[in-house]
Amino acid sequence: MAFESSLTPENVKGLALALLSCFFIGSSFIMKKKGLKRAGALGISAGSGGHSYLLEPLWWAGMITMITGEVSNFAAYAYAPAILVTPLGAVSIIVSAGLAHVILKERLHALGLLGCIICLVGSVTMVLHAPKDRTINSVQELWELATQTDFLVYAFLVFVVVVVLIIFFVPYYGETHVIVCVTICSLVGSLTVMSVKAIGIAIKLTCEGDNQFFYPHTWLFVAVVAVCGLTQLNYLNKALDAFDTAVVSLIYYVMFTSFTILASVIMFKNWQGQAASSIISEMCGFLIILSGMTLLLATKGLGDSDSFKLGLYAAFSPSLSARLSEEVADLKSFIESSKSERSQRNCTLRPLSSM
Amino acid sequence: MAFESSLTPENVKGLALALLSCFFIGSSFIMKKKGLKRAGALGISAGSGGHSYLLEPLWWAGMITMITGEVSNFAAYAYAPAILVTPLGAVSIIVSAGLAHVILKERLHALGLLGCIICLVGSVTMVLHAPKDRTINSVQELWELATQTDFLVYAFLVFVVVVVLIIFFVPYYGETHVIVCVTICSLVGSLTVMSVKAIGIAIKLTCEGDNQFFYPHTWLFVAVVAVCGLTQLNYLNKALDAFDTAVVSLIYYVMFTSFTILASVIMFKNWQGQAASSIISEMCGFLIILSGMTLLLATKGLGDSDSFKLGLYAAFSPSLSARLSEEVADLKSFIESSKSERSQRNCTLRPLSSM
Repeated sequence: MAFESSLTPENVKGLALALLSCFFIGSSFIMKKKGLKRAGALGISAGSGGHSYLLEPLWWAGMITMITGEVSNFAAYAYAPAILVTPLGAVSIIVSAGLAHVILKERLHALGLLGCIICLVGSVTMVLHAPKDRTINSVQELWELATQTDFLVYAFLVFVVVVVLIIFFVPYYGETHVIVCVTICSLVGSLTVMSVKAIGIAIKLTCEGDNQFFYPHTWLFVAVVAVCGLTQLNYLNKALDAFDTAVVSLIYYVMFTSFTILASVIMFKNWQGQAASSIISEMCGFLIILSGMTLLLATKGLGDSDSFKLGLYAAFSPSLSARLSEEVADLKSFIESSKSERSQRNCTLRPLSSM
Repeated sequence: MAFESSLTPENVKGLALALLSCFFIGSSFIMKKKGLKRAGALGISAGSGGHSYLLEPLWWAGMITMITGEVSNFAAYAYAPAILVTPLGAVSIIVSAGLAHVILKERLHALGLLGCIICLVGSVTMVLHAPKDRTINSVQELWELATQTDFLVYAFLVFVVVVVLIIFFVPYYGETHVIVCVTICSLVGSLTVMSVKAIGIAIKLTCEGDNQFFYPHTWLFVAVVAVCGLTQLNYLNKALDAFDTAVVSLIYYVMFTSFTILASVIMFKNWQGQAASSIISEMCGFLIILSGMTLLLATKGLGDSDSFKLGLYAAFSPSLSARLSEEVADLKSFIESSKSERSQRNCTLRPLSSM
């Protein structure tokens, strides 16, 4: 056997859908941003309360691309394990950074490029060691998985922690500690993903001729998605209002992915029968994607000539005085360009929700 | 089977020796540097031609630790495949950077720390998917492997390319293009490692009671190590004379590791019978270590407060004016500290030779 794990035809379909969704979502940002720019050149910009972007076809194309992306992300969950689909969300950030560099001519920092490469290599590692997805033949089977004692304990713990956070922490720390709202989103999100997966499988089975919408279980999953999804959206917006998009994105990505992996492992027993080395490789892949994202986000505001050059000069250049004078010149140009770039940057990142 | 690959008792022994060697080599730099500092405080510094460091016990302790490290590195080749031992050389750079931070109080850039973490995760990935080492029972068996047609073709090509480089390229481009000397070192180095492995196995078998030094083949391998090792040392010194240590280290690490993997795969057929996913994971691990090293070296000259903060502020901080004023203050302190740090930095990095 050439590949000892994971890449069954179903998984490949799910993987393809997940990657496709990343490309759609990543490029949708660029379209929307280009649309906003064009609209801004004609009327009042969106930031100042104008709505001229609604007349801009490119902005609408971006919206449609984004919705297509979210739909294919949803479909991916029906075919591949959540352990595979959720972490790959990071690829959309890479696509968006790459396209911003090529199309919008936003300078991509050399270390940011390294971050992209690290993310990609990490994604390959994760994909290679993703567990096989369990074959599910009915929603009842899913319901049984969801009502196993250990998953019920997990869901109960999530419920208790979330209620405690909402009642005792959000009012006092919600606007000063980013972790509060993001923890709520991530915990609730892990339940959303499990239910989204159930609905996805129900739709898939229904399309194959075995209607699952007669069963009340299917509608229970729909109700869970509605309640959890709205909670998630509410607290994500709270977090985005109070904190910078990049910080929220990164922390949300880590926590959301971690809790989703945990929930999936408890509910679907993904790791049963998998070799220890595959599981560790999978976790390594996740850590690597995370490191790459950190690097990409940390260097986001910097053009090619700024601090990376500082670093390169400090490490590589032989002449101290030449280095220092270039550093000062670079800093000056950075200060100038920051002023104009800052206003564009706020709408670049996706909050990484899969909802 | 919990681990589907690699970690046979022999491999574990080799892995332990390789990691031990990295700790010895990494910490030897710190001891030597601390010894030099102490000596510098008493007499004339080494850089100015003084030899007072020879009277400093700490410097000698560093030298002894380094030799111990090289010996255990040599022994590691006898137990584990070169594909595993050579890339792990990167760990010594992490050890050295970490100890420099703790003991010498050299500031480790936050992105440098990220680079260290990336290197470690990459190393774990490589170790998990390293191929089993072939069981060798005599030096004759090794000789047969070394005289297979495909390995002879590889050795012949190495010879031709090295001779062409030495005659036609070194005189004209040796001091302007770092790649020339480093290519020679790396190509020759791949043959050195194969012979070092042969000698290591010969010593191992001899210790087990089966004397291998009666056979002329063993002495032929010794001769190859002597000739190749000296060539390698000569051109590595040339490269280090003309270019910055960090640049040489990084390029040398990449090329040396790549050619060693190539030579090992040709000679020992490491990849035969290994799953494609394991081979790809192995290559991913190598790429990840490489990315981590690049990050560590690129940010080497920067303290915690310099450009990483620039990057973090640019991405994360809500107030532009507060950010910019801190950036200017940070740059000023960086310029001040660079002047004193520059002189210390030159002797930190190891040329990554395993010889």
